[in-house]
Amino acid sequence: MKNAWVNGEASQTVSLLDRGLTYGDGLFATLLLKSGRPCYLERHLERLRQGANRLRMSFDEALLRAELAAFLLESERKGLLVPDCLSVLKIMLTRGMGDRGYRFSNHHVCTRILMLFEHSSRSQQSSLSGICIRLCSTPISVNPSLAGIKHLNRLDCVLARSEWDNPDIQEGLMLNQQQRIVEGTMSNIFIVHQGVLLTPSVEQAGVAGVMRAVILDRASRKGIQALEVEPFTIDQLMQADEVFVCNSVIGIWPVIQCDAASWPVGRMTRCLQQWIEPSHDQ
Amino acid sequence: MKNAWVNGEASQTVSLLDRGLTYGDGLFATLLLKSGRPCYLERHLERLRQGANRLRMSFDEALLRAELAAFLLESERKGLLVPDCLSVLKIMLTRGMGDRGYRFSNHHVCTRILMLFEHSSRSQQSSLSGICIRLCSTPISVNPSLAGIKHLNRLDCVLARSEWDNPDIQEGLMLNQQQRIVEGTMSNIFIVHQGVLLTPSVEQAGVAGVMRAVILDRASRKGIQALEVEPFTIDQLMQADEVFVCNSVIGIWPVIQCDAASWPVGRMTRCLQQWIEPSHDQ
Repeated sequence: MKNAWVNGEASQTVSLLDRGLTYGDGLFATLLLKSGRPCYLERHLERLRQGANRLRMSFDEALLRAELAAFLLESERKGLLVPDCLSVLKIMLTRGMGDRGYRFSNHHVCTRILMLFEHSSRSQQSSLSGICIRLCSTPISVNPSLAGIKHLNRLDCVLARSEWDNPDIQEGLMLNQQQRIVEGTMSNIFIVHQGVLLTPSVEQAGVAGVMRAVILDRASRKGIQALEVEPFTIDQLMQADEVFVCNSVIGIWPVIQCDAASWPVGRMTRCLQQWIEPSHDQ
Repeated sequence: MKNAWVNGEASQTVSLLDRGLTYGDGLFATLLLKSGRPCYLERHLERLRQGANRLRMSFDEALLRAELAAFLLESERKGLLVPDCLSVLKIMLTRGMGDRGYRFSNHHVCTRILMLFEHSSRSQQSSLSGICIRLCSTPISVNPSLAGIKHLNRLDCVLARSEWDNPDIQEGLMLNQQQRIVEGTMSNIFIVHQGVLLTPSVEQAGVAGVMRAVILDRASRKGIQALEVEPFTIDQLMQADEVFVCNSVIGIWPVIQCDAASWPVGRMTRCLQQWIEPSHDQ
């Protein structure tokens, strides 16, 4: 971690009574910084708002924006944000301090956390060459009240990610108990089938990723049919014409292998990699 | 909070990189202290071990025990543990510090957190007079890989507890998507039906509470048939002869009302309240 602020001040810690720690009672967002500028910032803030609404958390968005601007300025001044370099910004919002017990006050004051990280150099290679993935046996947690939200309850992803050590496998897919594929441990999944772009619904489980929304939008604008559908059967995946995974930091990684199935890097995947290039003010 | 240690030293904070905060990657236990002595300590430590095994977390139990003894001694010396008074001890174990990303190191060092709290005086009154409860509309999270474990991913309980403000209602029941009752937001539930003691299975969702296990044990030893069964239908609850909820801090609270249904405080409930009195060395 290269820099961190809590509630507008340099800090490396939170209270033991912070409900983010005690119950995972909060949200996060992970953004790519290009030359110090956050990509898709407005979409990420919009998703934080939506997540906060669903969790009945209230936070001061103007304050968060002001702190974020100051944090990036300070990081730049300190030489932590180099032009033409990529970094990763993590925003966490928790419900703040609480007494013992699940009940929260309607007057809670959210904890605002900003963290700056290095970007992994491996990611760009994966965008070019594609990746190998696997199917995880840890099922995804199902709860329609929490589905779609990028909240801090991520133990299912943690356990799924612990299933493999092989560095040649870069992502694992998480299935529901009906053996249908919902997403990757840290990414959303898309397939192309007969020219149509498909991604699993996240109404029962999973995260509605910002990059997933960008891809659905961009495809539609280009006249490609792009649909949220029932989580995929394994057969549906294996018979897809193209497969890729995405998130805000990696962009799009083509999938070239999953167990016995393999795919070339597809044409639509390559197009989408171009189309998602962010204009920074978006 | 009256006292707190992190990894054997007085502290009120954890790192922003602690996986307990970033992913809810950890466990907790909440124990009743009677005159400063933890009730059912061995059972709680056994459950921490089981939870850690299931989450593939490794922690130094001897160290935790030593720190706990020293923490209680210090708290006593400071006058925070008064004879004949009740307090609450919370133990948290997280997977410790981590880089960004769900993957954890096999050499992770768990964070050990000890916290001392006041005990609520209202609890004993509820044990005597019984409580009113309600059915929550927030569904319980379902994941057999996490079910039973007292982990830090508790957003479903948080949302369920936020459904009511009426102070006369002291607990809410959480249902699965099949509209079957699994547990309370902070407690396990039992019913008595024709002399048989029943509690919902926690194989798909819910927490295997220490007090729940004590009750199942004590009932069996007294010759009462005590069964873990499919989560209850609402009808099953409404037609029960006796209803109570339990956890390690409250003991047993008889349930006297849930929506339109009401019950007297039952005979078996009263017996169990006696039988669960802990011998401190257990």
